[in-house]
Amino acid sequence: MIRHAQYQSLIDLFKRINHLDHAITILNWDQMVMMPENGVSARSEAIAELTVMRHELLTSQDVKQHLDEASRLTDSLNAGEQRSLIAMRIAYNDVSCLPADLVKAQVMAGALCEHGWRTQRKANDWKGFLKNFKEVVKLSIEEANIRQEVIGSSTPYDALLDLHCRGDSSSLIDDVFSQLKAQLPSLIDAAIEKQAANNTKSSNNEVHSSSVGQYPISEQKVLSEKLMKSLGFDFSAGRLDISAHPFSTGVIGDQRITTRYDDAGFLDALLATAHETGHASYEAGLPIEWAGLPVGEARNMCIHESQSLLFEKMVTVSGPFLKHLHSLIQHTLSAGKSMSYESLLSHARQVSKSYIRVEADELTYPIHVALRYDIERDLINGAITPEDIPDAWDAAMQSGLGLSTKDNYTDGCMQDIHWTDGTFGYFPSYTMGAVNSAQLFQALTVQHSDWEDRFAVGDIGFVRDWLSTHIWQHGCHKGSQELMIEATGKGTDAQSLIQHLTARYLEH
Amino acid sequence: MIRHAQYQSLIDLFKRINHLDHAITILNWDQMVMMPENGVSARSEAIAELTVMRHELLTSQDVKQHLDEASRLTDSLNAGEQRSLIAMRIAYNDVSCLPADLVKAQVMAGALCEHGWRTQRKANDWKGFLKNFKEVVKLSIEEANIRQEVIGSSTPYDALLDLHCRGDSSSLIDDVFSQLKAQLPSLIDAAIEKQAANNTKSSNNEVHSSSVGQYPISEQKVLSEKLMKSLGFDFSAGRLDISAHPFSTGVIGDQRITTRYDDAGFLDALLATAHETGHASYEAGLPIEWAGLPVGEARNMCIHESQSLLFEKMVTVSGPFLKHLHSLIQHTLSAGKSMSYESLLSHARQVSKSYIRVEADELTYPIHVALRYDIERDLINGAITPEDIPDAWDAAMQSGLGLSTKDNYTDGCMQDIHWTDGTFGYFPSYTMGAVNSAQLFQALTVQHSDWEDRFAVGDIGFVRDWLSTHIWQHGCHKGSQELMIEATGKGTDAQSLIQHLTARYLEH
Repeated sequence: MIRHAQYQSLIDLFKRINHLDHAITILNWDQMVMMPENGVSARSEAIAELTVMRHELLTSQDVKQHLDEASRLTDSLNAGEQRSLIAMRIAYNDVSCLPADLVKAQVMAGALCEHGWRTQRKANDWKGFLKNFKEVVKLSIEEANIRQEVIGSSTPYDALLDLHCRGDSSSLIDDVFSQLKAQLPSLIDAAIEKQAANNTKSSNNEVHSSSVGQYPISEQKVLSEKLMKSLGFDFSAGRLDISAHPFSTGVIGDQRITTRYDDAGFLDALLATAHETGHASYEAGLPIEWAGLPVGEARNMCIHESQSLLFEKMVTVSGPFLKHLHSLIQHTLSAGKSMSYESLLSHARQVSKSYIRVEADELTYPIHVALRYDIERDLINGAITPEDIPDAWDAAMQSGLGLSTKDNYTDGCMQDIHWTDGTFGYFPSYTMGAVNSAQLFQALTVQHSDWEDRFAVGDIGFVRDWLSTHIWQHGCHKGSQELMIEATGKGTDAQSLIQHLTARYLEH
Repeated sequence: MIRHAQYQSLIDLFKRINHLDHAITILNWDQMVMMPENGVSARSEAIAELTVMRHELLTSQDVKQHLDEASRLTDSLNAGEQRSLIAMRIAYNDVSCLPADLVKAQVMAGALCEHGWRTQRKANDWKGFLKNFKEVVKLSIEEANIRQEVIGSSTPYDALLDLHCRGDSSSLIDDVFSQLKAQLPSLIDAAIEKQAANNTKSSNNEVHSSSVGQYPISEQKVLSEKLMKSLGFDFSAGRLDISAHPFSTGVIGDQRITTRYDDAGFLDALLATAHETGHASYEAGLPIEWAGLPVGEARNMCIHESQSLLFEKMVTVSGPFLKHLHSLIQHTLSAGKSMSYESLLSHARQVSKSYIRVEADELTYPIHVALRYDIERDLINGAITPEDIPDAWDAAMQSGLGLSTKDNYTDGCMQDIHWTDGTFGYFPSYTMGAVNSAQLFQALTVQHSDWEDRFAVGDIGFVRDWLSTHIWQHGCHKGSQELMIEATGKGTDAQSLIQHLTARYLEH
């Protein structure tokens, strides 16, 4: 079939945009990983320029015209091309629907609020923060209202959710999270009780030492690379580096992940590596025939996070795989030779009630996310105002984890960077990802009943094949719930995660 | 003074081009230093796209119009802005004067010739190479004729020379090189004779060992960094990495150099580091107030190479600085503790007649360059044809170094990559750089008679200050010969280099 001219023009344009994105991605990676400090000013200018060029290309009058014409002639396109066209339309709408004045105001208010937050958080200065933050929220509500009109979402918040969790509505998330909020608190208490009873055998300093330098970074780097190879990472198509915060990024054929090492303990860096390897594996597994086009991209952040958490929590921290990892540690770390498997297992599965989300374990993490979700949903839909946040936060921490954050903004509602620049609708993806990961893992282990034997010898090839078949190779050709239903027989549902957590923390 | 609108538009445009160049530079660096092998296809496409965008911006009708209008209104510009405008006009002409068909034909012929060369050189296949190369030469002559018409140069070759050695004409280079060709052969013979007489004291394996692994790369890296710091390299505004061939590149505030290590010997990597540190120091010292504009760029390759060679040959390999370097080596390399200063000195100053330019020492190097210059000048000006090259090469190697390359194309006229893609007019910059470096160094040491005492303790701050004042801070505001005359009292002249080589190789 000969593609018609408008569709071909759109392909050319989106490929050109993808080439700009390639440059922006590498410039950002370089800035986080390689760039010396004096390079920051010229780098910021260059990235800003390419971003403006990208915006100019994507919002040009030509694009709208080609999209409109192509939409009228879809009978000349095959099914894949029609989905590709829809994904292009969505990419265009996402960017073009906002007035330039609003975007500019948001960038300025976000930069001001984030910049202030860096000192205000440390100073526990909620009032100072609130002043800037109210403007951010006001502008985000404005954005949400415009987007709601364009996409016809049921609520303004759903229109922001659509940017990060497209396909997963707030009514679905409400359902999933209310089950977690109802069932996790008692599960957490029971797990902590069981842990206290068991906590006599292994001593802490086997995995995290009080003596700095016990786990040289050069050894940890080798260990991380061995783990990545076990998890199927292809070093001819990617790299591992060091940055202040672990992240994953990349371009076609070139996935780059980072971790950070602490020479007093190796587990955090190692699990961060496993997590980012999951993200990178998804990106590397996207359909190459649609590479560089919107329909070839990852589905949404709830699916993306499910891949990273599946690699980290379902595979790496599973009992059988930890046996393999234990052997890698013994062969790689000088100080790891005498470490017992039981000690590794207990450290990888510590549970505790804590204030800080990024330090939380898999059992308490959903409580942290659900409370942020409830607050941001109500904030954007106008049910509460920014002034209401501290009380709402404290109430949720009290009921979920029994901790008070009263007057403690530093460790409470000011702990995260996300909201400072108006990133609303992102938080739920962390826990939707955890739920999806448990559900996907349950489905795949039902089909591979020998999974424990395979994991114990470091074989996860069948996991990668299954994920490739059911998730990776579909890119954006299917919706997130369509992917979940076809892979697991049902849409995202909290029960697999509850079952996984119960089995891991109470039954073993 | 209020800048007029056309000039301001040009500033905006050239800054935008500079931001694209920033991205292209980092993408290229990343490709050579960091990128995994599977990234090459997407990277090539991205770089090609940005290069096309750059070309579209620079050759747009707007630019020509603004340039023409601004040129009519120069009384509203100060002297610096007027020079800036001239540099913009030159940048525009350089790129816009060639028809797109010719550029495309050159890219294709160059790619074909270079690709073939990679196997033909090894196979000594001159005939196979000649077939592709004749097309490259034909198109380069076409280019030279067009450029000659635009810039009004005295010969077609001068128009290509203008791209790399702007300001240094072929008549100047003829003068300089004919002195070198007349005086170097006897100097080389005398130096080799003296060296043979002295060559009883130090044994080769003190600097280059036959045992692999004697100089661990981790130690050599520390040594390179120490040398760079001694030479004034600012690691908050740059990096040192490893690549297949040493090079220097960078963007504003961020100079990046590379070297390559051999664990059987440390001297080549160390001197490559010194060389690239010179290039990087020039780039870092360009006038910040003109950064991102053509007038703020480095003058030409004859000046650029003079900076790298000044750092490598005049500073690092000087007797007093080698004393400092000897101390660094003793404190940094495990196998360097027992090495004598005399051994280091003799290795850093080995002279030999050899076929290969890139392996040649400073005494024989000009012979290699002068013969290439004579051939490419005559080739582009139509005095000889590609078929004449092997005989011309053999004759020049016979008279300059007493070596025959008859029927030996591999080590003769097919050894370099430069000509394969039509890079003519670049070779002379290597030796013009050497001549300039000796002349600049002579002038600066006359003004700093205590230079030897300072070098011996690793102090070269006064060298950097002098170069900054006389070369770096001028960017393109002055011509190359204007820079040389103001810094040294005369234009580029072979005698300083002859004096330097005589003093170093015959008088000590």
